[in-house]
Amino acid sequence: MRIALDAMGSDNAPAIEVEGALAALATLGGTFKLVLVGDRESIEAELSRHADVPSERIEIVHAPERIEMGESPAQAIRRKQGSSIVVGLQLHKQGDVDAFISAGSTGAVMAGSLMILRPLPRVDRPAIGAILPTRSGHVLLVDAGANVDTRPHHLVQFAHLGTIYAQDLMGVATPRVGLLNIGEEPEKGNELAAETHRLLAAEAKINFVGNIEGRDIIAHECDVLVCDGFVGNVLLKFYESVAGFIVQMLRTEAEAASAKLDFTRIFKALDYTEYGGAPLLGVNGVTIICHGGSPPRAIRNAIRVAVQTVEREMVTHIQTRLAKLADAGQVS
Amino acid sequence: MRIALDAMGSDNAPAIEVEGALAALATLGGTFKLVLVGDRESIEAELSRHADVPSERIEIVHAPERIEMGESPAQAIRRKQGSSIVVGLQLHKQGDVDAFISAGSTGAVMAGSLMILRPLPRVDRPAIGAILPTRSGHVLLVDAGANVDTRPHHLVQFAHLGTIYAQDLMGVATPRVGLLNIGEEPEKGNELAAETHRLLAAEAKINFVGNIEGRDIIAHECDVLVCDGFVGNVLLKFYESVAGFIVQMLRTEAEAASAKLDFTRIFKALDYTEYGGAPLLGVNGVTIICHGGSPPRAIRNAIRVAVQTVEREMVTHIQTRLAKLADAGQVS
Repeated sequence: MRIALDAMGSDNAPAIEVEGALAALATLGGTFKLVLVGDRESIEAELSRHADVPSERIEIVHAPERIEMGESPAQAIRRKQGSSIVVGLQLHKQGDVDAFISAGSTGAVMAGSLMILRPLPRVDRPAIGAILPTRSGHVLLVDAGANVDTRPHHLVQFAHLGTIYAQDLMGVATPRVGLLNIGEEPEKGNELAAETHRLLAAEAKINFVGNIEGRDIIAHECDVLVCDGFVGNVLLKFYESVAGFIVQMLRTEAEAASAKLDFTRIFKALDYTEYGGAPLLGVNGVTIICHGGSPPRAIRNAIRVAVQTVEREMVTHIQTRLAKLADAGQVS
Repeated sequence: MRIALDAMGSDNAPAIEVEGALAALATLGGTFKLVLVGDRESIEAELSRHADVPSERIEIVHAPERIEMGESPAQAIRRKQGSSIVVGLQLHKQGDVDAFISAGSTGAVMAGSLMILRPLPRVDRPAIGAILPTRSGHVLLVDAGANVDTRPHHLVQFAHLGTIYAQDLMGVATPRVGLLNIGEEPEKGNELAAETHRLLAAEAKINFVGNIEGRDIIAHECDVLVCDGFVGNVLLKFYESVAGFIVQMLRTEAEAASAKLDFTRIFKALDYTEYGGAPLLGVNGVTIICHGGSPPRAIRNAIRVAVQTVEREMVTHIQTRLAKLADAGQVS
């Protein structure tokens, strides 16, 4: 198995990517190889700073350009054919690698995946899945920001995509699917939510548990939480920042009290770097999107998720499920 | 000044309400009187359990009915004319009291306020304001759940309502107004957000600081955060539950380590009961909505907010501002 890693994506590229890549190779087990995509000279310089580089498992593919954060995603993908994102996705498209990971511009990674890998047959809108920690496990939020102004049938597709991801990657046999809403009753919420509720309730292949309010997310009342990408993105970014805020308050108080308290478990539970990036679900390939501010640990964990996603054949499972639904007349 | 308090609203009514009322009278200062609305016998029984009841500052108005959580708000308001919510709001409408506070069904309090108090002239959609703690102060979220499927000009009205509230109740002379969105650039987000951004940027009387992402809320990048009630409600409930979740983890860890750490400041910062309920902005009166699960402290603080809202003449300020804008041709 070969995984492409955009070496120029993060705020501190390529140092972070190289460190994360080496950590993955050293600790994850398996025989996968990593293809580092980006400026060859910078990557080699970075690699030379580390001892014990397993060079037989690392390959560099040169990409002279870099897409910056402020650029228009679709334009940048079209114009910067030599960018690490375009080069990496082309490798994936051609079958040279089995997955692509980037901590670069989320918009560009998404646009590039849609334009180069293309959506899977019968997927109207690929969606970003994001994993949130809860009281007793994790919930997959779909869509965490790929689409705004979605229609009810898009949200039903997100439910299918999320179900497969939860089965393949989160180890949940029959994922409970919830609809993010502002009340428990089926008719509650905006037009999108009310109509989506009706559709999800009628979908035989989805284990729909009904509406999930903001306060129910943490209570882990579902494994897959379906929503429009606008709400999902606000929620995801808010959660990460709240966690950071509280952890900071905690450190300050603990320091003030000179307390020797071990917050490792709390920090781990709240730390998004544990979850290794967000999958772009519904494209014809494996794309994992990481934060621009990712530390090496997040890159390492994204590589773990990419390897598992390939091993467990998630893309095939999505295709099979959507084809069966189409045969049964359930997906237009 | 006379403040009506729905004594039958909370999950543990009227015990909580009576305790909160007595705490307010004992600790807030001033000469306001409280009108407890609800089942006279239950309220008197509850009062008799306390010593030192300042009976000259407490009045009971009997209301034999109670609106339950599951009921359709508008229907319940029409049918249960003897309910504590309807009786309390009628007292306000008639000028017998200056404000109304309830921890009952949010939907019913809102529907009742709209039907009985009515919206102020030129307000299309009254909105719920909710105060969220941030790193360095508070932000008022408008709308926290009164309206879904809003139009851009509604959000502009929320910005005006929120600006007045922040000036009158939060002590901010020139409140920074942000628009909740999923990117910094003006054209980002869904159709609602993009068009609202354009309108807010053109509004001379609003100190618009642009788009605010989920992660910027905690950084306190604005004082008033404008959004659709669907997103606002999800965000508010999520925040409260996340805070509770983290505080619980914290207690568990601290107990396990037998650490003597004082988390008072953290708990206080995250504790919604500090903020004393959410104002319904834009109705012709003062309505404060509390959680069903409010402890006495939250009721006490809601009474404080109600007293201040009346003293500082917020409703008059809203009316004056909207009238001036209408004269200037800025509000349709």
